[in-house]
Amino acid sequence: MLTYFTAGESHGKCLVTVVDGLPYGTPIDVDFVNRELARRQGGYGRGARMKIEKDEVEVLSGLRHGKTIGSPVTFGIANKVQNIEELTELTKLRPGHADLAGAAKYGTEDARNVSERASARETAARVAAGALAGHFLGLFGVDVLGYARAIGGIESSLTLVDPEEIRRRREASMFYMIDPQAEDRIKAQVDEVRAAGDTLGGIFEVVALNVPPGVGTYARWSEKLGSRIAAAIMSVQTVKGVEIGLGFEAARRKGSQMHDEIVKGDEGSIRRHTNNAGGIEGGMSNGERIVVRGACKPISTLRTPLRTVDLKDKEPKSAQYERSDICVVPAASVVGQAVVSFEIAAAFLQKFGADTFEDVQDNLRRYRARLQEMKLAYGRG
Amino acid sequence: MLTYFTAGESHGKCLVTVVDGLPYGTPIDVDFVNRELARRQGGYGRGARMKIEKDEVEVLSGLRHGKTIGSPVTFGIANKVQNIEELTELTKLRPGHADLAGAAKYGTEDARNVSERASARETAARVAAGALAGHFLGLFGVDVLGYARAIGGIESSLTLVDPEEIRRRREASMFYMIDPQAEDRIKAQVDEVRAAGDTLGGIFEVVALNVPPGVGTYARWSEKLGSRIAAAIMSVQTVKGVEIGLGFEAARRKGSQMHDEIVKGDEGSIRRHTNNAGGIEGGMSNGERIVVRGACKPISTLRTPLRTVDLKDKEPKSAQYERSDICVVPAASVVGQAVVSFEIAAAFLQKFGADTFEDVQDNLRRYRARLQEMKLAYGRG
Amino acid sequence: MLTYFTAGESHGKCLVTVVDGLPYGTPIDVDFVNRELARRQGGYGRGARMKIEKDEVEVLSGLRHGKTIGSPVTFGIANKVQNIEELTELTKLRPGHADLAGAAKYGTEDARNVSERASARETAARVAAGALAGHFLGLFGVDVLGYARAIGGIESSLTLVDPEEIRRRREASMFYMIDPQAEDRIKAQVDEVRAAGDTLGGIFEVVALNVPPGVGTYARWSEKLGSRIAAAIMSVQTVKGVEIGLGFEAARRKGSQMHDEIVKGDEGSIRRHTNNAGGIEGGMSNGERIVVRGACKPISTLRTPLRTVDLKDKEPKSAQYERSDICVVPAASVVGQAVVSFEIAAAFLQKFGADTFEDVQDNLRRYRARLQEMKLAYGRG
Amino acid sequence: MLTYFTAGESHGKCLVTVVDGLPYGTPIDVDFVNRELARRQGGYGRGARMKIEKDEVEVLSGLRHGKTIGSPVTFGIANKVQNIEELTELTKLRPGHADLAGAAKYGTEDARNVSERASARETAARVAAGALAGHFLGLFGVDVLGYARAIGGIESSLTLVDPEEIRRRREASMFYMIDPQAEDRIKAQVDEVRAAGDTLGGIFEVVALNVPPGVGTYARWSEKLGSRIAAAIMSVQTVKGVEIGLGFEAARRKGSQMHDEIVKGDEGSIRRHTNNAGGIEGGMSNGERIVVRGACKPISTLRTPLRTVDLKDKEPKSAQYERSDICVVPAASVVGQAVVSFEIAAAFLQKFGADTFEDVQDNLRRYRARLQEMKLAYGRG
Repeated sequence: MLTYFTAGESHGKCLVTVVDGLPYGTPIDVDFVNRELARRQGGYGRGARMKIEKDEVEVLSGLRHGKTIGSPVTFGIANKVQNIEELTELTKLRPGHADLAGAAKYGTEDARNVSERASARETAARVAAGALAGHFLGLFGVDVLGYARAIGGIESSLTLVDPEEIRRRREASMFYMIDPQAEDRIKAQVDEVRAAGDTLGGIFEVVALNVPPGVGTYARWSEKLGSRIAAAIMSVQTVKGVEIGLGFEAARRKGSQMHDEIVKGDEGSIRRHTNNAGGIEGGMSNGERIVVRGACKPISTLRTPLRTVDLKDKEPKSAQYERSDICVVPAASVVGQAVVSFEIAAAFLQKFGADTFEDVQDNLRRYRARLQEMKLAYGRG
Repeated sequence: MLTYFTAGESHGKCLVTVVDGLPYGTPIDVDFVNRELARRQGGYGRGARMKIEKDEVEVLSGLRHGKTIGSPVTFGIANKVQNIEELTELTKLRPGHADLAGAAKYGTEDARNVSERASARETAARVAAGALAGHFLGLFGVDVLGYARAIGGIESSLTLVDPEEIRRRREASMFYMIDPQAEDRIKAQVDEVRAAGDTLGGIFEVVALNVPPGVGTYARWSEKLGSRIAAAIMSVQTVKGVEIGLGFEAARRKGSQMHDEIVKGDEGSIRRHTNNAGGIEGGMSNGERIVVRGACKPISTLRTPLRTVDLKDKEPKSAQYERSDICVVPAASVVGQAVVSFEIAAAFLQKFGADTFEDVQDNLRRYRARLQEMKLAYGRG
Repeated sequence: MLTYFTAGESHGKCLVTVVDGLPYGTPIDVDFVNRELARRQGGYGRGARMKIEKDEVEVLSGLRHGKTIGSPVTFGIANKVQNIEELTELTKLRPGHADLAGAAKYGTEDARNVSERASARETAARVAAGALAGHFLGLFGVDVLGYARAIGGIESSLTLVDPEEIRRRREASMFYMIDPQAEDRIKAQVDEVRAAGDTLGGIFEVVALNVPPGVGTYARWSEKLGSRIAAAIMSVQTVKGVEIGLGFEAARRKGSQMHDEIVKGDEGSIRRHTNNAGGIEGGMSNGERIVVRGACKPISTLRTPLRTVDLKDKEPKSAQYERSDICVVPAASVVGQAVVSFEIAAAFLQKFGADTFEDVQDNLRRYRARLQEMKLAYGRG
Repeated sequence: MLTYFTAGESHGKCLVTVVDGLPYGTPIDVDFVNRELARRQGGYGRGARMKIEKDEVEVLSGLRHGKTIGSPVTFGIANKVQNIEELTELTKLRPGHADLAGAAKYGTEDARNVSERASARETAARVAAGALAGHFLGLFGVDVLGYARAIGGIESSLTLVDPEEIRRRREASMFYMIDPQAEDRIKAQVDEVRAAGDTLGGIFEVVALNVPPGVGTYARWSEKLGSRIAAAIMSVQTVKGVEIGLGFEAARRKGSQMHDEIVKGDEGSIRRHTNNAGGIEGGMSNGERIVVRGACKPISTLRTPLRTVDLKDKEPKSAQYERSDICVVPAASVVGQAVVSFEIAAAFLQKFGADTFEDVQDNLRRYRARLQEMKLAYGRG
């Protein structure tokens, strides 16, 4: 079973990522992990902190000669500022953060311990885990790609199907978008919002290409592929909504306009012309592209601070300002890609998993042959 | 740890619900469970099957003298038609169902075994589990209430805060809605769609009232309250989208318009005037009403059938028609309420849990006193 | 992941067994399950209750046409006496039972609720799960066989390696032993102890034949094959000790007398002449016979009752007498076989598991070929 | 839920210990952890490696101002020799090690990757986790103490009940024994065995003092306190047997000689005069001292090497010799104490757990008062 676990605080020694369950002999690309960490730190609209921290993993366990050896893989990601013991109190509770709920939970007037772990800094550890998983999937021809789809109210509904084109375009974009049309307007909006001391949210999209059908299950609700993905996306700091395929639009359509009819392709194989389901039916991948969206609220820390109460003296105050970003949707798209990669890889290994990487390859080969015999399409790249 | 597990097929002996982890001595209301099962079967727009099955639980284990005894609670829900051994093959794969993906997964041309478990009939077992959990929460003053919010494209954005009024209104509504205004238009729409052999989706909303702050956690992504709820909602057959609080609308707002400022109430206690976060910040309840929405696609089985392919002869066919409903959003609102109840109860017991029901009461009392001392509001009823 | 779960009380409606994770298409032998349930009820030295209950499973879910269909398998085992609501109080705490600790745990003077679930009756549900797992292993040539090895102080150290001979002999034995020599002396001992109103314990042994090497893991302590087996054996009511291979005798040997040297067999394959490790090294099967023993304390309910205190009035009393057995070691050997079967099957499926039964067969075939190439022995039958 | 996880190889960067679930505000004693790590490295009969590695934890996450902060605690334990990338092949499979089974599992002729993780070096990470748990229990008056009880065939059956005396005596002993009588004979035996190039096993014992009754459960087999402890003990490298209380001796006794009668103490409270059950009945602590034993096989690596086969050329060879110890029973007693501490702490927190350390204290206080009212003894120190 492929699982991961993160530990670490924003200003402690380091973040820690433990990934357990990769098959023996899986080639690991640490550079890819580091590039994803760098991407998480980029994007227009980021604050000062992003500049001082250049995240890189240190391999603590689980690799030898560039491959997994059957034991857990552990990464450390050092914090550049490690002053957790000296941090001041955080008593002016910041709306939109974990401060109030955490202070209540632990019966403390000082939410500093809470903010140290609840901070989005933790997502670096998840990007590391997700990058491992994403690279693993890539070795089997599966591409998982996240990009920003909307920032503030400005949305692009462009759909691209070529992974290389998606990569090229999002790399060229300061917002990690695949539609260059919207960029200028968005940049203007970000600059305006920054000037006003305000923040912006947006929507990211993650697509998974070439996932074979039958990954996931209908039999246990908690292991449905959609459930796993929804939990993962909603767990990303700032996310308030998740959609698969048409998402909320599906609630407005009639059945005849929604469901993806099954047709006989030219070469005799069974396929679809539409993908409103977003690649998931009955808790399983159906061979079409998996399409997921996450809605990010605007960053909770505003330079023009929100009203709050000081938990110490119970008096109204302005919320504590900690240096922050204007818009993290590009970064969230990296995190979204990571967590979706992980859930798909975990479900993939529940289906094709074995002790060794070569056995997984064999399993997949046999499955592909079986689908071919049944005239079922293997996946949609 | 409160967990549940379901088993059973649509035309097997029975559905089975196992609930483990309720504290010793918890009063159980089997009638409430049965009423929820009946509600799941109701609503305008249901098909013939709902009429022949009148679900009721049989207590198989875990109760004595109307209370839990520390061991797992098991319910059976008999199927009225138990002909699983005689069912015919299902080879004309139904778009929108698990048929194609399940047939691929198991290498079978006959998706009957798949449809028997993947069917939404399974949600009856989850309603039973959720009703147990919901009743349990009710004993601590927490109300979890689901209702339909939109059917087809017709939506009502009414917000009600009195649990009794919500209950009264949704019981008076053939669509389990709380806004009587929209009913006539919706009924007309359903009738029209039925006549056309088509189906309708919609949106349900679940609110949880009076959940104390600090339930859930920010420390482990998979136990964040929002993640658990998102997974549970997305696991409901037909759901393609989940929102908490403002949901996707949050992606379009500025920070200054989104975050719920923290203010000093009249009585000196710390509270909010808005609830855009939907009661969850940092993976935890924040003391405000929890507000969740699920987007249901229209039912996949249409009387005017969709195009498909027969897995036996690989030839184009009309999708197999199995008697079905026009619109299940009212039923989905019952399932949604159930699964959200369960996740909140599970997180609630992670925080306040103990071996006995009385100990949980004590724990909650002490927490309430501590919040009062801190001037933090206990919950919003 | 293969897991099971049991529910049910001694005098409730029924016991419930849920087995999740058997591959799609696994042939199930319900008769074998029932025969194991019958064996659990047999053996010389049993009390009256065994005669009135003739356990049989009712299939509640998960099977169709005699095979699994990818969804959880649920069994009910009806209790013949279902008077849980009418049972009298149990306040004279029985030494050796869960009564005192359970009464403390739940703050109750009446341990009846405790004894209803803590009773060894629950092992029937586990035998059902274990019989499923054992039959499954049998389809892959793995035999798991339990038998009594000692009763009271009278022990037999006979070692047999032919599964059919083990089955034949234990079936011929009123104590489920494989050494007929000791039977008469043991019967005399049981009769004597029965006359004295006392009880007897003993030791059972479980062997697993033909388990291929590499099942289990060294990488995660909780999934080591020995750990899983030790937990399972120690969980059987009455067990106070577990040994694998030489067990405590290993603590007295020198390294040169303990470890099983690795030698080149006639046919060139690599093997051992001894099996002091009991088939497990480094948390994994090593291809030799797995040998496990459990030490059962004598039954806690004596006709000549032990001294105790009444929790109601805190006065000394004789322990409550509930009709009981003299010696349950034969039954414990059936339970031991069941729980070891389950743990081996679960670890086996972690290694060879796949969505379908046929895929598991394929996986095993490939593994066998690989071992042959490496000149490593596949297993020891 | 209190859990832990270890990662790391013998010659990699470091070992990693993650402990999740300690309540917020728990005081942590890192010095105690380091002292336990040092004890694990001590004892007469250790090899050269123990001298070059002086283990100490580095706190990577989860602590601030000497207390837990609700997030996972992570320790790193640096390896002194970090040459995992340069290690030579291990093809002459060592009997008693994971080599053969691991090579089979992963289809490799070189068992080096296997030995790096399967090595007993991993137990350092577990000692760190167990020391955290043990210190935590100590804050609630629970002492968990491990010591060697037998080495080779020389056993001491001394029973001590005063924790300070146990600590003092085992610290004075080069074998971590509490009975000085046997020391000289054991030392002579170790020297003799060392001279012969052979190795020795033995038995360690762990006692847990003052555990309140009702910790653990009878309701779920896998969470029975005895099951958890048995799994933990059996998971320790070299262990082949586990006993609780009388263990295998119980199998030879009559019921009247085994079960611990319940009596009315002088002060009116309900207690026992004997403790043959070893403090566990019905899967729960019963308020008496918990007594556990583990049987260690002699170390598998002998200077006078065992016969084996080389997996490369399939020819008979002498097993690879890697510098090693003569007898690790003292070290195993430290590991045994650690893993038992952890399982008891985990079960303790399932019963008394809460979000904060102070809440746990409150819960325990209330429980103690309830037991007093019921006249049930709280524990046995």
